[in-house]
Amino acid sequence: MTERLPSLPTVEAQIEERYLKDWSGLARGTPRAVFRPRTTDEVSTLLRDCHARGQPVTIQGGLTGLAGGAVPADGDVVVNLERMNAIEHIDALEGVMCVQAGATLQAVQQAAADAGWYFPLDLGARGSCQIGGNAATNAGGERVVRYGTMRDQVLGVEAVLADGTVLSSLTRLVKNSAGLDLRFLFIGSEGTLGIITRLILKLQPVPPEPVTAFAAAESTQALTKLLRGLKRAPGVNLTAFEFMSGEFVDTAGRLSELPCPVAPGQPWYVLIESAEGHASHDAGALQTALEHALEQGDIVDCALAASLAQADAFWRMRQSIPEMLTALAPTVNFDCGLPWAEMGGFIARLQDTLQRRYPDARHLFFGHMGDNNIHLMTGPHAGPDMHAVEAEVYAQLRGRDGTISAEHGIGFIKKPFLGCTRSAAEIEVLRRLKSALDAKGILNPGRVID
Amino acid sequence: MTERLPSLPTVEAQIEERYLKDWSGLARGTPRAVFRPRTTDEVSTLLRDCHARGQPVTIQGGLTGLAGGAVPADGDVVVNLERMNAIEHIDALEGVMCVQAGATLQAVQQAAADAGWYFPLDLGARGSCQIGGNAATNAGGERVVRYGTMRDQVLGVEAVLADGTVLSSLTRLVKNSAGLDLRFLFIGSEGTLGIITRLILKLQPVPPEPVTAFAAAESTQALTKLLRGLKRAPGVNLTAFEFMSGEFVDTAGRLSELPCPVAPGQPWYVLIESAEGHASHDAGALQTALEHALEQGDIVDCALAASLAQADAFWRMRQSIPEMLTALAPTVNFDCGLPWAEMGGFIARLQDTLQRRYPDARHLFFGHMGDNNIHLMTGPHAGPDMHAVEAEVYAQLRGRDGTISAEHGIGFIKKPFLGCTRSAAEIEVLRRLKSALDAKGILNPGRVID
Repeated sequence: MTERLPSLPTVEAQIEERYLKDWSGLARGTPRAVFRPRTTDEVSTLLRDCHARGQPVTIQGGLTGLAGGAVPADGDVVVNLERMNAIEHIDALEGVMCVQAGATLQAVQQAAADAGWYFPLDLGARGSCQIGGNAATNAGGERVVRYGTMRDQVLGVEAVLADGTVLSSLTRLVKNSAGLDLRFLFIGSEGTLGIITRLILKLQPVPPEPVTAFAAAESTQALTKLLRGLKRAPGVNLTAFEFMSGEFVDTAGRLSELPCPVAPGQPWYVLIESAEGHASHDAGALQTALEHALEQGDIVDCALAASLAQADAFWRMRQSIPEMLTALAPTVNFDCGLPWAEMGGFIARLQDTLQRRYPDARHLFFGHMGDNNIHLMTGPHAGPDMHAVEAEVYAQLRGRDGTISAEHGIGFIKKPFLGCTRSAAEIEVLRRLKSALDAKGILNPGRVID
Repeated sequence: MTERLPSLPTVEAQIEERYLKDWSGLARGTPRAVFRPRTTDEVSTLLRDCHARGQPVTIQGGLTGLAGGAVPADGDVVVNLERMNAIEHIDALEGVMCVQAGATLQAVQQAAADAGWYFPLDLGARGSCQIGGNAATNAGGERVVRYGTMRDQVLGVEAVLADGTVLSSLTRLVKNSAGLDLRFLFIGSEGTLGIITRLILKLQPVPPEPVTAFAAAESTQALTKLLRGLKRAPGVNLTAFEFMSGEFVDTAGRLSELPCPVAPGQPWYVLIESAEGHASHDAGALQTALEHALEQGDIVDCALAASLAQADAFWRMRQSIPEMLTALAPTVNFDCGLPWAEMGGFIARLQDTLQRRYPDARHLFFGHMGDNNIHLMTGPHAGPDMHAVEAEVYAQLRGRDGTISAEHGIGFIKKPFLGCTRSAAEIEVLRRLKSALDAKGILNPGRVID
């Protein structure tokens, strides 16, 4: 791998396979070079050079994305941040961390823990994904209901613009009203406006061991009512509310050989976690709230984990995704968002349509209800059917205040559908911002918008 | 007041006095007209017309700002949103409100309460300030330590751009990764990039009655240690942590005839509020934590309010600002932000310098420590001294990861000092964004940046 700086190599002897694909499996071509800079200055020098030449650049973190955003095309220059992985500073008094963008999420979590703090963002890809990629895609995960998305964890950003300008907006203050906050240009813009090189992160007090429960309900409406109740219940401090369809629990149970923790054969299940102040007292808070929900008929059965092992078993059910992706391959996977009031109708219409059209496939609904996030995994599907499934799902989102991507991003793969949930005026403003910061369009071309 | 649309009046018979000033007292001139549109379409038509003519526009909410951002110049067209004050919709299931930008903060709070929810942003100006102005300035206030700033309350924004384009980004989802989030162009940009016309707000569960305490400490370092401890204490749910210097408490006590609730003559005091799940249990949580802090020597005395009346008395001490502004007039007032670790040195250096140079003035430090926010009110000062005081305070902020405005904004008044805490590269990006969205510079010209 050639890494001469600042001038670009013209021929690339060998590019390692791992830089060519993300977890979506999409591959687009062979880049001319992969650079793995060690400093912000190196990133700046490289971009200045690419900018002068009009050279397209693909930015890479841990390549765990599902939208193809980090997958290079023929002739691209790849900038992978994996060598910029230092935890630079932790202010253990206030709970603030300065980190280079290439540190893995797991390294950030561990460094926070070592300093007596907690970094709440968490994803299955934690060991591989990079914190800069988490910011560029505004990652979500399983703790959003309590701590928000990656956006809510970031106090400051250093980014390199397309022309090599280093934009250091490394404020570490909870409040700062001195001019527009520039963090938000880079968080969630998927590398289209700059390369994030450094982040200031807000850390949280270490939460107590959570109480974990599993419950069954007859409808998604009942689940939203339960969720509303738990958000308001005294003493309950909700840290996860992960819903799953009966078919999801059935499939996960068979593949992972896990018994359903509560009454089997129900249409809906939910894994609930609550982390409260007083261990002895809190179990009571969630238990009291669930007993009330049983009396009200919002749930039909529930179980509290009596041990860490049992809580793990509940979570394994929810986290059987890799086994399912294999068993149902080839699958089509969705990451939709909808208001609570729209969820039931959306799911019912899709269950009906998909079951009717593809009776031999499984259609598994699950997700982070508190974050408005519905995932759907459907498969196996023949190649030609896959676009029809996409068209059907996105058609059901139109006009319902929803999103085609709650947490995975747009990248290449969802770009054709952006107009389902963003207006022409919004897309035009995205274009104006792109022109203002990357007039030549060298950063992550072809992603999100043209 | 002429309000012909869409063509602009050339002569204005009479402009009401209240549209000429904000709470800073700054006045700049006489606008040619004040428009009070009733719909987003009217705002759009008006801006299209102003854009065609290159007509400068000053945008107004409740005119309670302290940075002069809404104060018009000679010949401006003023757009005041006060007639667009409808609470349009509340989703009482999920806790989501759609509101026009001109509704007062108090009307929003009341509508949330009427629907069984809670809108947490709160400021002294609640009865006059408009929710659109709160968003445009990213307002803070006394509950940020628990709920964040206005930015954290906004799920979606509708704004009208300089050329009249209506940008509707009225998502109401907790998570949305479908392209860059455009909310953040308008929140905190003080009307320089568009006129906010409508907001989707996130509501919170109604918190329980808080437990209120007042404590005395020997240093700001002790206060940060106390704050850190309370953020981590089991069962404590901190909703306010308002520190005050001994001189502030002494002055407030004399002006408002309030006795100091704890040992008088201490260098630092703090008002603490904690809202927890179980009323009977929670008093214990804060009390336990404060007893521990006493044992550790972090505080030297404390009192828990035994009644609502006593809690009100604690708060009146903190909220004696109007009386102080009058008694110490003319004052110079600051809204700085600093990391906790920098606060003690910053305050000590300024106390020393200001006391030495202006021994007849009072120099009162107070603010929202959990939000990194230090306010300073100093006065009385002779006119020529006021700039010297500003220069001294802002010089002490340089190079300390601070901000010249934590919550009041930049407007006109702080624009000369923006470079103290924002880099040349940041200011250049602000300019590029301004050009991209308002090429003719008609919206709030002269504010924040040129």
